[in-house]
Amino acid sequence: MSNPATTEKRAVILLSGGLDSATVLAMARRDGLTCYALSIDYGQRHSAELDAARQVAITGGAVAHKIVSVDLASIGGSALTDTSIGVPTGPTEGIPVTYVPARNTTFLAIALGWAEVLGATEIHLGINAVDYSGYPDCRPEFITAYQRLADVATKAGVEHHGAQIKAPLIDLSKAEIIRAGMALGVDYASTVSCYNLAASGAACGDCDACHLRAEGFTRAGVADPTRYQSRR
Amino acid sequence: MSNPATTEKRAVILLSGGLDSATVLAMARRDGLTCYALSIDYGQRHSAELDAARQVAITGGAVAHKIVSVDLASIGGSALTDTSIGVPTGPTEGIPVTYVPARNTTFLAIALGWAEVLGATEIHLGINAVDYSGYPDCRPEFITAYQRLADVATKAGVEHHGAQIKAPLIDLSKAEIIRAGMALGVDYASTVSCYNLAASGAACGDCDACHLRAEGFTRAGVADPTRYQSRR
Repeated sequence: MSNPATTEKRAVILLSGGLDSATVLAMARRDGLTCYALSIDYGQRHSAELDAARQVAITGGAVAHKIVSVDLASIGGSALTDTSIGVPTGPTEGIPVTYVPARNTTFLAIALGWAEVLGATEIHLGINAVDYSGYPDCRPEFITAYQRLADVATKAGVEHHGAQIKAPLIDLSKAEIIRAGMALGVDYASTVSCYNLAASGAACGDCDACHLRAEGFTRAGVADPTRYQSRR
Repeated sequence: MSNPATTEKRAVILLSGGLDSATVLAMARRDGLTCYALSIDYGQRHSAELDAARQVAITGGAVAHKIVSVDLASIGGSALTDTSIGVPTGPTEGIPVTYVPARNTTFLAIALGWAEVLGATEIHLGINAVDYSGYPDCRPEFITAYQRLADVATKAGVEHHGAQIKAPLIDLSKAEIIRAGMALGVDYASTVSCYNLAASGAACGDCDACHLRAEGFTRAGVADPTRYQSRR
């Protein structure tokens, strides 16, 4: 028998508690990676996301789950971190107010640091450009630029190359993501997408994230396990 | 008279409390920029750095100073954030254990976010490649790669271009930095460089940062205002 320590391939999986990153974790496990889940407590409006991430890390088979705090709320500028900015309930044009300045840039920076400490050679994240809500840091060119940075920013990058940044959902629609996840046994009932979650944990059904999610389940032809605040 | 609001040019200045970034702030003020100082509480061994940054922000003429917390200590991997790793007291080879994985990558991410909220068009930081201690994220190629990222990562980048990342000390020696700062009236006595600072605020005189700093003052031909733990 080969020594697992020598063949093990480690990956840091950015886990938000949402549908997309839960699918990414399932894909990475399918590919035989040893998965270290990383969630960021960035001052988001509700802690339900992080509770969901904890659950997904366990059911998804991560070997460890770390939650790192970064106080992005102190710089504000987003409806997701600043309660004085309302979350829109209808469709929006351009980059929406739920965009958190430099959020994925910050998340990947922390992932890059942890990957270096772990000796992980890959970082996976669940962004996708099809249903990306217009966020600049969910586009393929963002990932390309980050890879170039990772190759020069770290000790691992100087000595050989930086961790490979992978966004396996980048070209998938929400429906395709859901179908892929269902095939891998992802329990979407434990994931959270809503920007306006009630204290009860029920989704609002009206925000951009709820719309994208509900439409994804409909198009995938899969029953939506989301618990909504009012009957839809 | 022109309206200052229309001609004002804002910059985020990463301020560590050390000698280099204090000089960068003075240079940015000399160039007429409205300076927003940003310090990161990343779980460093001692809080004296942040106390120094507060003092430098005030004496250096920043219009605001924000300290944002990010828990890099929780990922460890550095003598600066993990007390179980000792700080070396002599010269080291290769990338030293005081390297904090992805530190500058994380700091610039937060700076990028705040710059976007402020409408600041520049981000300044005090890295330099001459006396850079071997840190990968203190090299010109790191800044080049980060600029490419900034241009695609943010709303500002999508709409026109990202904040310009400037490292005005990149090619200067410590002695040249000190001479430039002295000419601009920087009070180096209030800056902190030591990795092993005593509770009294006195520098150890032995760590890599102390060596680089002391040598810089000697070569600049300037009296070293640093308070050391023992007479040198």
